[in-house]
Amino acid sequence: MPDDCPFIVVGKPQILFSGKWLYVKETKFKKPGSDHLQTKPDGVDVIATLKKNGKKYFVLIKQYRFPLEGFCIEFPAGLIDPGEEALQAGLRELKEETGYTATKVVSVSPGIQSLDPGITDDSVVFVTVEIDGDAPENLSPKQSLDEGESLEVLLVECDKILDYINSIAGTVNIETMVYTFAVGFAMGRTF
Amino acid sequence: MPDDCPFIVVGKPQILFSGKWLYVKETKFKKPGSDHLQTKPDGVDVIATLKKNGKKYFVLIKQYRFPLEGFCIEFPAGLIDPGEEALQAGLRELKEETGYTATKVVSVSPGIQSLDPGITDDSVVFVTVEIDGDAPENLSPKQSLDEGESLEVLLVECDKILDYINSIAGTVNIETMVYTFAVGFAMGRTF
Repeated sequence: MPDDCPFIVVGKPQILFSGKWLYVKETKFKKPGSDHLQTKPDGVDVIATLKKNGKKYFVLIKQYRFPLEGFCIEFPAGLIDPGEEALQAGLRELKEETGYTATKVVSVSPGIQSLDPGITDDSVVFVTVEIDGDAPENLSPKQSLDEGESLEVLLVECDKILDYINSIAGTVNIETMVYTFAVGFAMGRTF
Repeated sequence: MPDDCPFIVVGKPQILFSGKWLYVKETKFKKPGSDHLQTKPDGVDVIATLKKNGKKYFVLIKQYRFPLEGFCIEFPAGLIDPGEEALQAGLRELKEETGYTATKVVSVSPGIQSLDPGITDDSVVFVTVEIDGDAPENLSPKQSLDEGESLEVLLVECDKILDYINSIAGTVNIETMVYTFAVGFAMGRTF
């Protein structure tokens, strides 16, 4: 444990289950402190804005997820391959999952973002890009999916994203990061 | 599996590990269709805007998370108790974790939002509220934390949230839903 951990660990943490992708570790602790930070993210998520025929869209995907036994609305995303940089992985995954080639990289998030910090250390970096949908390479986008992937690309008009998400939320799962993005965007517009 | 699952399950899913809070299930599948939707979320996250002395802030928390072995910036949040509604749980958690009493409920998200759908079915509902920081009950906010909780309340000026998150992201973990909220808010302001 790091020095600034506000809890005292009791005994030795135990690995309860160890698989190919996941392990489960039990740490017993009690209340009574330097921050530990992961330096390598597991994956990358892409926040992409597409301009086409004078309109602006956010690029989302709808993917079947076994843990949910159903479909989920997410950003294009994927694991970072060994030796790959986050930005490179983001542009690759965007192209593979949606067929679109990013025209401009707006930002790569600093540090690492945690998906579900209460129960896992699963983490991503965010790559934010713009796509020129009128560019020749983006006129007929074609996915190239891995064997285990089945996903649909959704183009959602930017100014309607929260209404859209709220309208489908009863019929499909929404990833938390997509929901809060939509809420933040709507709040920002009227701030 | 639901009828619209785009994969064929091979053999019978196996429970590889079963604990108090978590289980690990292995499902083998191959490629070859009605959606399964969870109806009960595990937890609730609160997106709170605080107005005080003419300024507007977002209310975030900084919490030690064992899976990360470090601190994480999150929205106030918690599990929904048995028999409790999501809204009720959100208002309770906001009060317990930050000491603030919500003045106005803006929305409760429809459906259920998934935290990390690639590996878990952990889910929440979002409660969005406004807090009058000048109201008598909010002048001296006092946390009442559970035994296992250690967390700090952060008030971040709304129009600076993305700059703030980017400035601290190298020194502390940021939950994905907070990061995308900040990006969305900044994008909405300049849309």
